[in-house]
Amino acid sequence: MKDRPVTIAVIGGGQCNKKEARLAEEVGRELARRGAVLVCGGLGGVMEAACRGASSEGGITIGILPGEDTHTANPHVQIAIATGLGYARNMAVVKSARAVIAVDGSYGTLSEIGYALQSGIPVIGLGTWSISRNGKEDRSIIPAKSPAEAVDKALKLAETKSRGAECQS
Amino acid sequence: MKDRPVTIAVIGGGQCNKKEARLAEEVGRELARRGAVLVCGGLGGVMEAACRGASSEGGITIGILPGEDTHTANPHVQIAIATGLGYARNMAVVKSARAVIAVDGSYGTLSEIGYALQSGIPVIGLGTWSISRNGKEDRSIIPAKSPAEAVDKALKLAETKSRGAECQS
Amino acid sequence: MKDRPVTIAVIGGGQCNKKEARLAEEVGRELARRGAVLVCGGLGGVMEAACRGASSEGGITIGILPGEDTHTANPHVQIAIATGLGYARNMAVVKSARAVIAVDGSYGTLSEIGYALQSGIPVIGLGTWSISRNGKEDRSIIPAKSPAEAVDKALKLAETKSRGAECQS
Amino acid sequence: MKDRPVTIAVIGGGQCNKKEARLAEEVGRELARRGAVLVCGGLGGVMEAACRGASSEGGITIGILPGEDTHTANPHVQIAIATGLGYARNMAVVKSARAVIAVDGSYGTLSEIGYALQSGIPVIGLGTWSISRNGKEDRSIIPAKSPAEAVDKALKLAETKSRGAECQS
Repeated sequence: MKDRPVTIAVIGGGQCNKKEARLAEEVGRELARRGAVLVCGGLGGVMEAACRGASSEGGITIGILPGEDTHTANPHVQIAIATGLGYARNMAVVKSARAVIAVDGSYGTLSEIGYALQSGIPVIGLGTWSISRNGKEDRSIIPAKSPAEAVDKALKLAETKSRGAECQS
Repeated sequence: MKDRPVTIAVIGGGQCNKKEARLAEEVGRELARRGAVLVCGGLGGVMEAACRGASSEGGITIGILPGEDTHTANPHVQIAIATGLGYARNMAVVKSARAVIAVDGSYGTLSEIGYALQSGIPVIGLGTWSISRNGKEDRSIIPAKSPAEAVDKALKLAETKSRGAECQS
Repeated sequence: MKDRPVTIAVIGGGQCNKKEARLAEEVGRELARRGAVLVCGGLGGVMEAACRGASSEGGITIGILPGEDTHTANPHVQIAIATGLGYARNMAVVKSARAVIAVDGSYGTLSEIGYALQSGIPVIGLGTWSISRNGKEDRSIIPAKSPAEAVDKALKLAETKSRGAECQS
Repeated sequence: MKDRPVTIAVIGGGQCNKKEARLAEEVGRELARRGAVLVCGGLGGVMEAACRGASSEGGITIGILPGEDTHTANPHVQIAIATGLGYARNMAVVKSARAVIAVDGSYGTLSEIGYALQSGIPVIGLGTWSISRNGKEDRSIIPAKSPAEAVDKALKLAETKSRGAECQS
């Protein structure tokens, strides 16, 4: 299917404050306006806000849930995947995306950032974790100042990654 | 989201003969005609045939892949989930569905049938496994004589299951 | 490590009656007497009985748990692995073994039998599932009449499998 | 089983330099001397060095592998678990431990640190990642200056965690 749309993951805490929710919702809206599919962990907080934003603009939203019941998905998830795998589903969230946008987030988000970077999937950060390895700053998490900038960077890097993959194959 | 559509899993071998492919394709077509979302393991054989059928009728198809690359999905998968979990993804395929239709299938399909029955998710069989426990036949796999009958039974049982779940909550 | 001992999985229901517990306990004892490591799902029923038997003969017992807490292991598990993966851990139980002995068992056991046969890992049955594919009996589950016979067959097949693997590499 | 020994995870890169290998090996030795079981991801680099150290002092070593074949374990792994789950096995490595010691490490290690902190499992660092959340340093990764200090802190925190858990239950 040549026209399968680009999928971008939005990751972040299952609980979040109003400012973070506004950022995540705007990320979702912008992804939908630009034709990207949104994939996330399907629960509340940043995940729900991002799905609400994407849905309000007619975008497609996928929630990959830790539990065994699709009814635990937030109401703005259109495609609910119940993995029953607990937080091992974090890996599936990032590996299903061409790029990841992290909005704030707690330790589960850190595990997702680790998985994404391990797989060479670009990570854009909006007020999220920064990391140093053995005292030396690691700049792999690409900062963005606004939701629009985050989406813009994510889509550009997703395209590069995809092209790279196509060249290799 | 009150109107999230019913999702039905189609399971079966990654390789299949022409007869099985015809059955699976017709199952996919019938699911799409009746407005159900199709979820499967995303690869070839029965999975590909079912997705081809559903797509040809404008239905939504989800592929939950074992590997780390969404490009391994068959071309009729619209929503590709790359789990990186190997065949542990079999659990996610069935738990994301309200009912399961098994078309032929090998030992991986048997593991999926086990997961579905363990979770109380109805399994409809089209020429698939039958099972006996300690010498006594277990009739949990509900036989169907045609793709249309399989879809009909799956949707009826999915509705019952959903209602049951709503009553409990 | 040339002398890593042979590991055999014992699978079966998390609840079982006295007869099944006696069979499982004797399987565990016999595995320990013959120097094999026992791996199982770590919970009650058949798993606990098998671990109790193995421990009573000084054998090593491994429990691969579905949950996140090693305290949920039965008291005869010496090495407790908390996967947090739910029933996806069924795959890890069988893939860690050179052969599998199934004692009775319910649908979770059926998923484990499916995984084992998919991977070419021999399955010995003591009053467990039997399977037919599209109306034709599948004799892959090797019946045993007693715990001693089950262990004997499992160890012989494990050796064959191991040799085969060594020849290939 | 009241006397199940304390299990400590050692995490770090699958490839490492000589200095990191010396640190990891000494961590393994010290864990064995103090009666702790070592759990790790079972492969090379930091994992292999830690297992070599523990084995040389008669300790028990567990390797939880990503693949489907126990033969991929490093030669100092005594108990090899083949999960077939890919890097989702990272979660099982940390959840099976009462505390985690991170030696250097790359992005996979970062995902393990995320999982451990999410679960309230203490993380001791020897030249590993440090993390800041939204510009504010997060001091959850406890630094150690030597392998002996790392093991000492890990065992003390493991004991506290265990007691806490017992008080709650």
